[in-house]
Amino acid sequence: MKVIVNIQLKEGVLDPQGKAVHHALLALQFNEVQNVRIGKQIILHVEENDKEKTLKRVKEMCEELLANTVIETYSIDIEN
Amino acid sequence: MKVIVNIQLKEGVLDPQGKAVHHALLALQFNEVQNVRIGKQIILHVEENDKEKTLKRVKEMCEELLANTVIETYSIDIEN
Repeated sequence: MKVIVNIQLKEGVLDPQGKAVHHALLALQFNEVQNVRIGKQIILHVEENDKEKTLKRVKEMCEELLANTVIETYSIDIEN
Repeated sequence: MKVIVNIQLKEGVLDPQGKAVHHALLALQFNEVQNVRIGKQIILHVEENDKEKTLKRVKEMCEELLANTVIETYSIDIEN
């Protein structure tokens, strides 16, 4: 099973990397850009056919290792 | 308009960060994980109401700054 985990900084947490990219885009005349936030996308391949079980396990992975839940939120999408 | 850009390393390009996370997951007894790839998710807010125009402009941003098209692929999702 293919699992996509998206991890983003929580609202209100400063994102200096996003700010830097925003500035660079403005310097390149992309003046319509109002805000940039940069997060991670992690693609996992998991040997498990049960969707419920996979979701539960990947949630554990996020809590224990993949995300820093103090400052980040995550979402999990499961593809077959 | 909210635009989500997902950037991943192309197939075949080594991903040492993904490998490190994979090892860490195995050490935590997540033995069902077969493969891990780590990419970026960039969320842009763009002042533009035309979907076609937005897509074209964000594509330009990807080609010029956001993605390294030699080793990375990108996909663009537009939300209203």
